[in-house]
Amino acid sequence: MKTKAAVAWKAGQPLTIEEIDLTGPKSGEVLVEIKATGICHTDYYTLSGADPEGLFPAILGHEGAGVVVDVGPNVKSLRKGDHVIPLYTPECRECKFCLSKKTNLCQAIRSTQGKGLMPDSTSRFSIDGKPLFHYMGTSTFSNYTVVPEIALAKIREDAPFDKVCYIGCGVTTGIGAVIYTAKVEAGANVAVFGLGGIGLNVIQGARMVDADKIIGIDINPEREAMARKFGMTHFINPNDVPNIVDAVVQLTDGGADYSFECIGSTKVMRQALECTHKGWGRSIIIGVAEAGAEISTRPFQLVTGRKWEGSAFGGARGRTDVPKIVDWYMEGKIDIDSLITHTLTLDNINEGFRLMKAGESIRSVVIY
Amino acid sequence: MKTKAAVAWKAGQPLTIEEIDLTGPKSGEVLVEIKATGICHTDYYTLSGADPEGLFPAILGHEGAGVVVDVGPNVKSLRKGDHVIPLYTPECRECKFCLSKKTNLCQAIRSTQGKGLMPDSTSRFSIDGKPLFHYMGTSTFSNYTVVPEIALAKIREDAPFDKVCYIGCGVTTGIGAVIYTAKVEAGANVAVFGLGGIGLNVIQGARMVDADKIIGIDINPEREAMARKFGMTHFINPNDVPNIVDAVVQLTDGGADYSFECIGSTKVMRQALECTHKGWGRSIIIGVAEAGAEISTRPFQLVTGRKWEGSAFGGARGRTDVPKIVDWYMEGKIDIDSLITHTLTLDNINEGFRLMKAGESIRSVVIY
Repeated sequence: MKTKAAVAWKAGQPLTIEEIDLTGPKSGEVLVEIKATGICHTDYYTLSGADPEGLFPAILGHEGAGVVVDVGPNVKSLRKGDHVIPLYTPECRECKFCLSKKTNLCQAIRSTQGKGLMPDSTSRFSIDGKPLFHYMGTSTFSNYTVVPEIALAKIREDAPFDKVCYIGCGVTTGIGAVIYTAKVEAGANVAVFGLGGIGLNVIQGARMVDADKIIGIDINPEREAMARKFGMTHFINPNDVPNIVDAVVQLTDGGADYSFECIGSTKVMRQALECTHKGWGRSIIIGVAEAGAEISTRPFQLVTGRKWEGSAFGGARGRTDVPKIVDWYMEGKIDIDSLITHTLTLDNINEGFRLMKAGESIRSVVIY
Repeated sequence: MKTKAAVAWKAGQPLTIEEIDLTGPKSGEVLVEIKATGICHTDYYTLSGADPEGLFPAILGHEGAGVVVDVGPNVKSLRKGDHVIPLYTPECRECKFCLSKKTNLCQAIRSTQGKGLMPDSTSRFSIDGKPLFHYMGTSTFSNYTVVPEIALAKIREDAPFDKVCYIGCGVTTGIGAVIYTAKVEAGANVAVFGLGGIGLNVIQGARMVDADKIIGIDINPEREAMARKFGMTHFINPNDVPNIVDAVVQLTDGGADYSFECIGSTKVMRQALECTHKGWGRSIIIGVAEAGAEISTRPFQLVTGRKWEGSAFGGARGRTDVPKIVDWYMEGKIDIDSLITHTLTLDNINEGFRLMKAGESIRSVVIY
């Protein structure tokens, strides 16, 4: 079939809107009509060329929501008409990782996904007979896409696509890091470094579990107001204090119980660790650092009881937990609407990248 | 009163045996006759002058066992004749740290202890009217010593002092890291970097909880035999393989579930982290690195599910857990006898330091 899509031809160049060819779905695969997709920093990172594993030409996009149009052979859990969110972290429920119950990092299709291909090592996308790479197993910058069954979360049908698409990455990454990775308990003190989209979602996750002090840290004072709306109780601009680690330690009588790094700066990751409480502080890295960058600290920080950890896709198991987060949104427990600052058509998708680069948007969503 | 003690006058110089003066016990303090004391690397580290916080002149020693001779006012839990192990990590059961249930790092007397003084900011030791510093709150290189009540574990009276003194530091540090810090579960794969006294105790802790593969790693092939006796199932000499991280990953089908660094090398700490399993591997730092040294890795290691942690005194609460470990020894669940390779008198204590420096002992014990 033909579908309209935004093609990333080369690193550093704008996307172009094309009519492309889509085949499938093959065995275990599902054809999905994407109804809306967010534009995430990771798409920007890949398009910029900074990601050493970036493949071109490709159909980017990994934060979508849509409707099942057709299913291939051996698909059991989905049928035509189901509403779904594609998952760049799938959940096969059969691999060593899924069965461990200790991680959400299903590895069932990791090697082919990393190569920009479907599990049978081929692509469903092509243009003029030349294949285009898939991206993160989702490729939501195409009106129609093919996704493995294990990489689709079935969601309730009354959820608006143009809002819950954001649960496909940013919302789950932030809220999940609090609830699934850190399992923050009521009454805990939480420090959040970076008040972009991820940081704001960490903040509303911390509010959801009734954290006590929710301290937001950002060098941009304009982010304070929105963060307070999401549940931040204290704001610190690192430029206003002599030492951000000391400032958090003083505000929390010894250090934060949990901290979250939502920027991708290895320097900030160290601050986030060292501002946590001796004896039990846990620091969760969410941000993606530039290729090759390293974190460092004195081992004494860990020997005296701090733990350094990370979180990917919020520790959420996609098919199990994403539908619950959709429920939380529908029940009014979390706010997504305020975070979606711009909506666009696919034809204007490059404007979404411009807004992100300029820091003018929290989240731009393309509506098909 | 007068007591015989080994005095550390200056960094880098041998101890000298002296008749010194001891006062007390004051309120909340206990006078203990030390019956035996191990010589630990930490004593050596301080005596060498490498510890920037080392204070001189001082009475070193922190791995002792003995008998209560007298108690000061307001001591409630101990009386004359009780058998005890002094605790460099006390357990007051009242401070924020003790009450958190998340750490064993009681802070009740930390500031004075770090200054080489008793909680009232004075010393009980002197010679010719000049005060001598306490060390780690224990000073077990003195036949008689004064220790706060909260820094004494009461143990069973049939336990031999010349063996269970080792529980005052090394045994608990190694076994505790497995049982209290990591809480290793039966069937887990464990990698142990460094097969000195701490590493051997980690190994017997892992055997105690029925770990599956217990992999010992050391550049000294002579350590293999003893480690196998303690429960090691696989030995790797890093000099015999192209890459120690890859070797552990291959042996464990993806990485160790838990790793323990028992050396104090920041380079090895990184290897210990990176050889753990994606998704859930936990690496515990036990070794003490040289002052100023830093650990580093790519944050991707943590974002993909590994956790970097540390352990001090094995995560054990001294008054609660040390008596249990004494029971385990008396019940034959753990071996201490094989680790005590040399016994000495106080007059020969410098020989114990020489044996340690030369790598000729696992543990030397001074018997009073």
